[in-house]
Amino acid sequence: MKAISATVINRLPRYYRYLGELLENDVIRISSKELSEKMNVTASQIRQDFNNFGGFGQQGYGYNVSYLYKEIGKILGLDNNYNVIIIGAGNIGQALANYSDFERRGFYITALFDVNESSVGKKIRGIEVLHMDKLEEYIMKNNVQIAALTIPKAKAPQVAASLVSFGIKAIWNFAPIDLHLPEFVTVQNVHLAESLMQLSYNLKTYNEKKEKKLK
Amino acid sequence: MKAISATVINRLPRYYRYLGELLENDVIRISSKELSEKMNVTASQIRQDFNNFGGFGQQGYGYNVSYLYKEIGKILGLDNNYNVIIIGAGNIGQALANYSDFERRGFYITALFDVNESSVGKKIRGIEVLHMDKLEEYIMKNNVQIAALTIPKAKAPQVAASLVSFGIKAIWNFAPIDLHLPEFVTVQNVHLAESLMQLSYNLKTYNEKKEKKLK
Repeated sequence: MKAISATVINRLPRYYRYLGELLENDVIRISSKELSEKMNVTASQIRQDFNNFGGFGQQGYGYNVSYLYKEIGKILGLDNNYNVIIIGAGNIGQALANYSDFERRGFYITALFDVNESSVGKKIRGIEVLHMDKLEEYIMKNNVQIAALTIPKAKAPQVAASLVSFGIKAIWNFAPIDLHLPEFVTVQNVHLAESLMQLSYNLKTYNEKKEKKLK
Repeated sequence: MKAISATVINRLPRYYRYLGELLENDVIRISSKELSEKMNVTASQIRQDFNNFGGFGQQGYGYNVSYLYKEIGKILGLDNNYNVIIIGAGNIGQALANYSDFERRGFYITALFDVNESSVGKKIRGIEVLHMDKLEEYIMKNNVQIAALTIPKAKAPQVAASLVSFGIKAIWNFAPIDLHLPEFVTVQNVHLAESLMQLSYNLKTYNEKKEKKLK
């Protein structure tokens, strides 16, 4: 398969989410036109995106929703199951542990870890909070692929390095810092403060446009 | 000022974060080369990005960190203060309320709202949880600019529409659904499940590359 551009890949999870909703509503087939109206993108972009992967079936009859959902899932690696641990049992860590939707996609949160003695031993949706002392042993024994990092930024680099030394190859990073890790480690950042700055930029830009129009 | 591309704008919060860290460490001037090494982007990209805004000062002497930080802050709209409310006092809502870092950027969380009677009246970092019944009155009286939406997706579209009818023009949406709102409303999405799918895509793609090399 030829290399697919990052922008196309970035759009796939959104297609996957819409197709999942269609499936829930028992929709069997959908045309690129109908899908484009739902998703607020052009039908031609949808067809172009899907052509990167061979087109996913005949346009005249529309796409088979179930087939398309499975195929996009495979591209995203969702035909595998992943064991996920959460480092940091604070609010964000607990929120992730409580979010049962991840399991539907094949991401199984199997444990949380914290240094705080008052958290250790608690259960969140049945998932136990273990002490950080147990981290290495747990990773070795439990085939963990992904670690979510929900700890303060000061500790994040050192904990991330430990995770990698214990064999973790994918980190979902919520700490507001860039992790410098070996190339073979996949890092996906969720930088909330930066998301909020994008919001304020857009709000400001809209207000400026409006003022200009009024003048 | 000419229109700035979205990709440049998307990079600004990261520059802002790095410059804030430099300031904390009392760095007064920095060259594009030094900044590029820290941020792992090319010095020429930094210079090109900054040239969109007039260049921010002489290259030979490096950039004045404090000046650059303030100017990028202004572009991002961070020279204003914003009152922010959080709709949904669950784990994500509480995590946001507990995150004091947002205040440093000018985002003041002034109240949370929930329908759950057992949450109403609680305080999170001194910020009160109010009943959703009070939402309209509160927005009218308190000059609220931004609402964070941390409620289940089934209720999100209706609550978002109410927020807009009460005068909110910026929504930070954590519900896993696209909101269809009037054009004058700024929506910034944080779709966690989609972020996790990007992670699994990258993990899968890396593993496939490795397997290919081994063959």
